[in-house]
Amino acid sequence: MDILVLVLDLVGTFVFALSGAMLGVRRRLDLFGVLVLAFAAATAGGMTRDVLIGATPVAALSDWRYPAITLAAGLITFVWAPLIERLQQPVRMFDAMGLALFAVVGTQKALDFGIDPPMAAALGMLTGIGGGIARDVLMAQVPLVLRAELYAVAALAGAAVVAIGHWLQWPPAPCAIAGALLCFGLRMMALRFGWQLPVALQSGGEGEPPDAMR
Amino acid sequence: MDILVLVLDLVGTFVFALSGAMLGVRRRLDLFGVLVLAFAAATAGGMTRDVLIGATPVAALSDWRYPAITLAAGLITFVWAPLIERLQQPVRMFDAMGLALFAVVGTQKALDFGIDPPMAAALGMLTGIGGGIARDVLMAQVPLVLRAELYAVAALAGAAVVAIGHWLQWPPAPCAIAGALLCFGLRMMALRFGWQLPVALQSGGEGEPPDAMR
Amino acid sequence: MDILVLVLDLVGTFVFALSGAMLGVRRRLDLFGVLVLAFAAATAGGMTRDVLIGATPVAALSDWRYPAITLAAGLITFVWAPLIERLQQPVRMFDAMGLALFAVVGTQKALDFGIDPPMAAALGMLTGIGGGIARDVLMAQVPLVLRAELYAVAALAGAAVVAIGHWLQWPPAPCAIAGALLCFGLRMMALRFGWQLPVALQSGGEGEPPDAMR
Repeated sequence: MDILVLVLDLVGTFVFALSGAMLGVRRRLDLFGVLVLAFAAATAGGMTRDVLIGATPVAALSDWRYPAITLAAGLITFVWAPLIERLQQPVRMFDAMGLALFAVVGTQKALDFGIDPPMAAALGMLTGIGGGIARDVLMAQVPLVLRAELYAVAALAGAAVVAIGHWLQWPPAPCAIAGALLCFGLRMMALRFGWQLPVALQSGGEGEPPDAMR
Repeated sequence: MDILVLVLDLVGTFVFALSGAMLGVRRRLDLFGVLVLAFAAATAGGMTRDVLIGATPVAALSDWRYPAITLAAGLITFVWAPLIERLQQPVRMFDAMGLALFAVVGTQKALDFGIDPPMAAALGMLTGIGGGIARDVLMAQVPLVLRAELYAVAALAGAAVVAIGHWLQWPPAPCAIAGALLCFGLRMMALRFGWQLPVALQSGGEGEPPDAMR
Repeated sequence: MDILVLVLDLVGTFVFALSGAMLGVRRRLDLFGVLVLAFAAATAGGMTRDVLIGATPVAALSDWRYPAITLAAGLITFVWAPLIERLQQPVRMFDAMGLALFAVVGTQKALDFGIDPPMAAALGMLTGIGGGIARDVLMAQVPLVLRAELYAVAALAGAAVVAIGHWLQWPPAPCAIAGALLCFGLRMMALRFGWQLPVALQSGGEGEPPDAMR
């Protein structure tokens, strides 16, 4: 079981790093910028979680396999960018797997640090989507995880299963598996059928912030 | 007194969440993105302060009322966005109240953690303006708190009163009240009379960073 | 020796603050926004490093000289912006010095906190480039340190010398000097000869993120 989690975690890191490196290539960063963006996309979620709960030094700094795999993903993307663009279908599936696993593992870690279940679920979601947010903010664009088909919602749903299970004192392993499957399933179905959350009605304005803060 | 601070703190959280949700609606985020932006705007300032002084797990993760009230603000904005746009005047006033309170409470907390008065005042200001910065950075726009009428200055002025009072060993409660009133008053007057800080003369350039860093 | 490090560290802080203030002036921020940007550029790298390794309260909050020197740099830039634009050559040299010193000092501090050498080198690099990243993200532009001539690479090279020296148990002082000289030399030569890292070939796309994350 632990081996499985480790493998999935590394796969998730690899695919998230891939997504960061890919954006770096498209925005014409040089080799080094691509690697930095890969690292940010793969680790920012977990690092933010660890910093917020006080689990320092953060985990991504204490296991050499994470930077190693991130570096590999960055180099592979740099060299074979056109190929990876064509592998969309499998990359999306691995990405959904990474999201599911990050959300579940992140929630569990927050619970282990004594965070209450509702906030632990929020932290699990953040673990899943934080990398994508950091990647897009560094490229000065609105984070797509805040718009994509049920991306953050799927992460929260999976995290909530783990948090509720913990609150009801159910055994953690089945809850983790159920949460990961729910997240993965939701995300894949949202991609398949183009599910979207509603957008609010509004009276005008064009990206201007509320006047209260101007 | 403590009840009053709690109520004002929750009001501040509510109004800051409102400002985040409003920007999310204007930028056409879906329901979930709106909620995430509301949460960022309401809590990023306090979370950053707590992380920098080492007060982890950060406070926003340990009290369910903050996420609950943020969620409420996000949902209300999502449903009644056009209405809230029309309530500018009261929203601005509550926002100034929130700013004043966040600045004062943030300074006090930093002092309690042994930070020196000048830096504690800076952290108090950051508590007040951090949420607005996070909100705008997530939407890939230059933070308006860095440009708005004395917004950050008012926060710093209020925070400075608390820090100076602490340095002179005056009793904290009157200092906190005086600081909050100063911040609130400055901000309301700046809004009323359109006060602005000066902008530097410059020799040209158009948003380019200094060449030293290129 | 310690006096030398302190002086160089303060010079580095001053020049980094200058670069932040300069960008603020060019983007027409008011006086206060300029000061905030100066502070972010000068301290964000070190603060992020301290937060990630758990060295809280972060160092920039516990020594009054750093905010004082940052304030001075911001005010000077605000008043004499056109002059400083013309002093490009010396500013670039001091900037490269600051980068070298921040990278070396950051790596050493991470090693002192028990971080493994490879990650300590990464943190040293982050100490050097973090300020520039924060400065540019706040102004909603893609960080130039991710594109500039060997900027991040030079920081990493200098940091790596310190980390490798620590791993081989060499005496720290000569390693620190060698690392700083390597970083400074690389950066100055890259500026002189226009060295750039390669950019990846790609099949199209225009700044769009990979579809896996949409």
